[in-house]
Amino acid sequence: MGVGGMGPPTEGRAPASRRLWDLCHRDPRLHSGGDMAPAGGPRAKKGILERLDNGEVVVGDGSFLLTLEKRGFVKAGLWTPEAVIEHPSAVRQLHTEFLRAGADVLQTFTFSATEDNMESKWEAVNAAACDLAQEVAGGGDALVAGGICQTSLYKYHKDESRIKNIFRLQLEVFARKNVDFLIAEYFEHVEEAVWAVEVLREVGVPVAATMCIGPEGDMHDVTPGECAVKLARAGADIIGVNCRFGPWTSLQTMKLMKEGLRDAGLQTHLMVQCLGFHTPDYGKGGFVDLPEYPFGLEPRVVTRWDIQKYAREAYNLGVRYIGGCCGFEPYHIRAIAEELAPERGFLPPASEKHGSWGSGLDMHTKPWIRARARREYWENLLPASGRPFCPSLSKPDA
Amino acid sequence: MGVGGMGPPTEGRAPASRRLWDLCHRDPRLHSGGDMAPAGGPRAKKGILERLDNGEVVVGDGSFLLTLEKRGFVKAGLWTPEAVIEHPSAVRQLHTEFLRAGADVLQTFTFSATEDNMESKWEAVNAAACDLAQEVAGGGDALVAGGICQTSLYKYHKDESRIKNIFRLQLEVFARKNVDFLIAEYFEHVEEAVWAVEVLREVGVPVAATMCIGPEGDMHDVTPGECAVKLARAGADIIGVNCRFGPWTSLQTMKLMKEGLRDAGLQTHLMVQCLGFHTPDYGKGGFVDLPEYPFGLEPRVVTRWDIQKYAREAYNLGVRYIGGCCGFEPYHIRAIAEELAPERGFLPPASEKHGSWGSGLDMHTKPWIRARARREYWENLLPASGRPFCPSLSKPDA
Amino acid sequence: MGVGGMGPPTEGRAPASRRLWDLCHRDPRLHSGGDMAPAGGPRAKKGILERLDNGEVVVGDGSFLLTLEKRGFVKAGLWTPEAVIEHPSAVRQLHTEFLRAGADVLQTFTFSATEDNMESKWEAVNAAACDLAQEVAGGGDALVAGGICQTSLYKYHKDESRIKNIFRLQLEVFARKNVDFLIAEYFEHVEEAVWAVEVLREVGVPVAATMCIGPEGDMHDVTPGECAVKLARAGADIIGVNCRFGPWTSLQTMKLMKEGLRDAGLQTHLMVQCLGFHTPDYGKGGFVDLPEYPFGLEPRVVTRWDIQKYAREAYNLGVRYIGGCCGFEPYHIRAIAEELAPERGFLPPASEKHGSWGSGLDMHTKPWIRARARREYWENLLPASGRPFCPSLSKPDA
Amino acid sequence: MGVGGMGPPTEGRAPASRRLWDLCHRDPRLHSGGDMAPAGGPRAKKGILERLDNGEVVVGDGSFLLTLEKRGFVKAGLWTPEAVIEHPSAVRQLHTEFLRAGADVLQTFTFSATEDNMESKWEAVNAAACDLAQEVAGGGDALVAGGICQTSLYKYHKDESRIKNIFRLQLEVFARKNVDFLIAEYFEHVEEAVWAVEVLREVGVPVAATMCIGPEGDMHDVTPGECAVKLARAGADIIGVNCRFGPWTSLQTMKLMKEGLRDAGLQTHLMVQCLGFHTPDYGKGGFVDLPEYPFGLEPRVVTRWDIQKYAREAYNLGVRYIGGCCGFEPYHIRAIAEELAPERGFLPPASEKHGSWGSGLDMHTKPWIRARARREYWENLLPASGRPFCPSLSKPDA
Repeated sequence: MGVGGMGPPTEGRAPASRRLWDLCHRDPRLHSGGDMAPAGGPRAKKGILERLDNGEVVVGDGSFLLTLEKRGFVKAGLWTPEAVIEHPSAVRQLHTEFLRAGADVLQTFTFSATEDNMESKWEAVNAAACDLAQEVAGGGDALVAGGICQTSLYKYHKDESRIKNIFRLQLEVFARKNVDFLIAEYFEHVEEAVWAVEVLREVGVPVAATMCIGPEGDMHDVTPGECAVKLARAGADIIGVNCRFGPWTSLQTMKLMKEGLRDAGLQTHLMVQCLGFHTPDYGKGGFVDLPEYPFGLEPRVVTRWDIQKYAREAYNLGVRYIGGCCGFEPYHIRAIAEELAPERGFLPPASEKHGSWGSGLDMHTKPWIRARARREYWENLLPASGRPFCPSLSKPDA
Repeated sequence: MGVGGMGPPTEGRAPASRRLWDLCHRDPRLHSGGDMAPAGGPRAKKGILERLDNGEVVVGDGSFLLTLEKRGFVKAGLWTPEAVIEHPSAVRQLHTEFLRAGADVLQTFTFSATEDNMESKWEAVNAAACDLAQEVAGGGDALVAGGICQTSLYKYHKDESRIKNIFRLQLEVFARKNVDFLIAEYFEHVEEAVWAVEVLREVGVPVAATMCIGPEGDMHDVTPGECAVKLARAGADIIGVNCRFGPWTSLQTMKLMKEGLRDAGLQTHLMVQCLGFHTPDYGKGGFVDLPEYPFGLEPRVVTRWDIQKYAREAYNLGVRYIGGCCGFEPYHIRAIAEELAPERGFLPPASEKHGSWGSGLDMHTKPWIRARARREYWENLLPASGRPFCPSLSKPDA
Repeated sequence: MGVGGMGPPTEGRAPASRRLWDLCHRDPRLHSGGDMAPAGGPRAKKGILERLDNGEVVVGDGSFLLTLEKRGFVKAGLWTPEAVIEHPSAVRQLHTEFLRAGADVLQTFTFSATEDNMESKWEAVNAAACDLAQEVAGGGDALVAGGICQTSLYKYHKDESRIKNIFRLQLEVFARKNVDFLIAEYFEHVEEAVWAVEVLREVGVPVAATMCIGPEGDMHDVTPGECAVKLARAGADIIGVNCRFGPWTSLQTMKLMKEGLRDAGLQTHLMVQCLGFHTPDYGKGGFVDLPEYPFGLEPRVVTRWDIQKYAREAYNLGVRYIGGCCGFEPYHIRAIAEELAPERGFLPPASEKHGSWGSGLDMHTKPWIRARARREYWENLLPASGRPFCPSLSKPDA
Repeated sequence: MGVGGMGPPTEGRAPASRRLWDLCHRDPRLHSGGDMAPAGGPRAKKGILERLDNGEVVVGDGSFLLTLEKRGFVKAGLWTPEAVIEHPSAVRQLHTEFLRAGADVLQTFTFSATEDNMESKWEAVNAAACDLAQEVAGGGDALVAGGICQTSLYKYHKDESRIKNIFRLQLEVFARKNVDFLIAEYFEHVEEAVWAVEVLREVGVPVAATMCIGPEGDMHDVTPGECAVKLARAGADIIGVNCRFGPWTSLQTMKLMKEGLRDAGLQTHLMVQCLGFHTPDYGKGGFVDLPEYPFGLEPRVVTRWDIQKYAREAYNLGVRYIGGCCGFEPYHIRAIAEELAPERGFLPPASEKHGSWGSGLDMHTKPWIRARARREYWENLLPASGRPFCPSLSKPDA
């Protein structure tokens, strides 16, 4: 199923990828990073597939665009990652927070970082994003994943070669920068996702592919099961969903993907990186079609306890790569790591600042607050919105 | 009404403060900070009272404890600011975000940083907190305010001299560090707040005092109006509330304070730094007594539009120092600065990443999302919680 | 404090009332009702004041206008009681249901039955309404109360003599029909209520007076306490509120009325007949100003358990005449009678069809429904609306 | 498809039914009802199938058990109709109200009126129920339908002959009483419903059959489509659902039934009599499993406007027999008749007391209430519950 870490293409990979690989590794810039392991040399850290093949839980990271929008570094509407150049310390800080919260993977902040969205800046942005993620991952155990997403072009021109070329340009930067593996994420149409996987496979590192679909399937009504099968057949090593839908909806979609793969006799690793928002009232397009998107989503933000349930259910479903997308703050990632600490055998660094299940309240001077220092309390709490004039559900605009 | 900036005590201040001032300025450590203006020398930036006396709006900063808890650097329950030493880059980043969002004041992250809460670390924490705030304020126009809060001791022993001594110890650090002014905040009992003001006045810089009370008054049933009068008579230059209650409740309390001062023939500047949570269902103790505190408050988080309304109403009420407390993220502070940009004459730096009233959505490919790029949409939105099994209000535990 | 039952005016009543009394009792029509006790003769049943003076609980009846609107016999908007002539069996049936539910008083269905609202029909309507209530009360223990309410005229012309004349016309019918006592209800302005009491006192039977106000007082900002004092001084024997506000709000108003009377050194009996709707979001005008009035009030309808709590709280507050107004169905009246059965010493007839606190479910075949056959279950239930797109509170239109 | 009205069995009906028919018509009691048309003779009113075959809308009636429980004549838990004997005027009144509201069919109040539920009283109850419905229907155009429902026995012993015998006993009374047609309603298992239809067909009058199932199908997981096909093949002339689920859910089930019949090449008339409660949070068992059943359902009661939408959607779906079940008060039935008045060509009598779409408010003195006298207002109102501590949805107990 491919190799972990970055190395020469395994046998059976297409010759084309070897060409790209060789090309990249002739680039002297690749060797300048003092804290990177020598390309092709012995590596201390296990690759993503080694981990998943061993049955380990891999904790993903969380929200960049929406979180940095709230911190003042990303503009809603454009949703492009120029912050990696303009405000690198803000991006570095967020990577650090996710790492500290228990993330095993740091994704490069390269969402939409293509020429059509960012003009000539695109290349510098991709390169800087890799540098930032790798700098934070440092000598530690976390992997760096290069990420691409659907193009703006596909909706208007389903032009396979142009679109694949867009993907390939980003890929070249990732290859040069020696990322550990690749993620094709946020695809509404499985056809385009398949193209992305076909391109990403060219460099011989593991490829994950996640679609931003719900239980009704992709925008052309391809079911989640069929989507998963197509992605697996295209060569994706890890398959799942990200963004657009809340925890419970995303797990439903994962269940359908898993069944589709099983029925087709296929086996891949499963991955989920849902929204940090509750969206039971989703329409086909998920949260972007809800009236609250993107500036009124606050009442929908999930609690840490919601995320502990999500992590447990994802695990029980057989998903082993569990992270978050828009709305996932560092404490939500920590909640995944804490819930699955028994399976993983350790707590994340940020748990030094968190008492499990509210236990940090046990010294409070008010007895009724001390009484909240227990699991049953938080597991059963139905939190109020403080908004008596607001409904609990919306009707999607489309 | 006192001077802005740190300087020799103005005439009419008590001789005691001169003693402390002299003491501090003999301390050679004071002069080590390369980017600080020479003590007592000429200063470019206007002091807090100059600004307020001129009728300017002063934008405060936002949440440290709860925000850094979510980022993984503060432990709920203890709520102490050791992050200034353990993770200074996280604190520096948050100061930077508030500054960028438009804050005119950076408060030192010294909440509860007293010996009884932090043992021997307390002094280093106070000093480091001052350094971080001053480093971020840099050569710019923002003021640094040293902050103290109520003691744990008061509840058990209303021992004026011990408590004043606790305050004085923190004050000595602030004086050494040459902060621009002082804030006594988060007091449940006006008696203790008065003691704090009496101590803080000793160094001759402006003193703000905010209580964490609601419209019912302090824990001994002293009304907001009476509290304000006592604080004014104790010498506070700026008076108001912070924390514990949401925007609308805090503004009600401010109205009562204002009326109390007016009825007593007193005039001080007014200040409000409310919660970033909706709490219409508050009991006397405010949000800490709500069942959602502190790990299930997500559905109560205010939107940026809520904060624009709050800023406008505060302004209309005559409050000119407007900021936030727990739950106020950088984008909430930006919302204050944007709402009052017409009065202030400029937008904050972070507005480069924010289209006013959702205008950043006007290029969206989906027409129903483009339709959200206007003020009427967001002003009238009643955001859903996505939580149909949860109520809109809770009953406080006490 | 006056006598129960209809009889010659007690000493101390004004001579004017004797004149009216004599006048009425010369009218031969008065003596035609076969089931009425002879005027002035011995009566088996105790009068309203005897009961209240003895400390007995008096259970009022419930909703006529809104209930008969739902049954198809009253037109919303007009809200006039022509059903007593057009569909007497429907009115008789509703009286019977309230009697069976435990009501000690049957109010004549004469709301708004004045010439200005009903033209020439008004007299026949008032007479028929008396006949129907008396027919149902029959030889039993229930009292019949003649009811009048505020005029349409007052808003435009505060013409005391014209308005008093309107009241006097209805009163003449009640006197002829020999009702047991009189209720002036649904007054927004205490001045008009006082005029009503002054008129009703003329015939020498007990007079109750209830205003349709909330804790903020009447439409001219006379406080509930002042209203109560004015009504008491005008000669009302029983004082309280009816309609417009839900149970908890009405009890708040009663508390203020009680305090007002106490502070003035006055003592009267207290009476409450609140709405059968929850209105925590009331404005000054109560439920008519809520956007749901009158055709979307369904989600606000109180449960029987709400009413048991209301009855208990009213009792604890010292109110002894406890009934309902708009929205009170027969089972709500039964809930009052059941809650106060220990004090009253008996259950109402309709309790033969009602297991206390859900006990009728104890034979259900589904164990989870059997589990609902207990007090704790219903006392603590927070019933869902089944309306996830609707809010829990509205903003009043005025 | 059978004949309307009661008459000799049509050709093709089983000989067994002729035997029963003859048996019944030898009974002299049958001919005692003065206001009944002679059996087999000419009848003025069109039968149910004539109406439906002509494409007419047939308005059903509404709730008896829950409505009479609230009026004090039925005991929750037992849910038996002894009121027809104990309080006939209450039952007569309710029939009258539904007739007046526009019902074309009066169902005998014979729900659960079998020997196992009511012991020896069962026969008198069935007979009295027929008399009451027929008395109210009088010489008018409304049809009387005899109703039976599922047995308590089936759950424990799926004994076809015993169960059919229970049905046959009730049927004999209906035949003697000469009801216009028959309804087998409230069946959770299609097998038992088929048995009921087989029995009811024996007398040669039209047979309607409705199950109390939702979109997931019957308790043995037979889909709504399959249920409909089985009922049609058993000989039911009219097929649909009643009770247990709210309007929108019941219409979903109807859609599935319609598709099932279409796919099987069958054609029958369709009928829906849903709950008058919103139940979007239903489990398989419908409203009985919701925690609010049966004493806390108030916040779920549908408005008249909800029912106008339901009636329109049912009509658009091709359903022509449209009525209600538990929770449907007379004004809800009127709402069906008003919504479909354009198709029917007339308004019901009770509309003399109802302005279409709130128009009765157009004379109100308060302008903001007058502003409610229009369709757009009520169509778009999202009514508040007045219950801020309650959720909008519940979790079913099973």
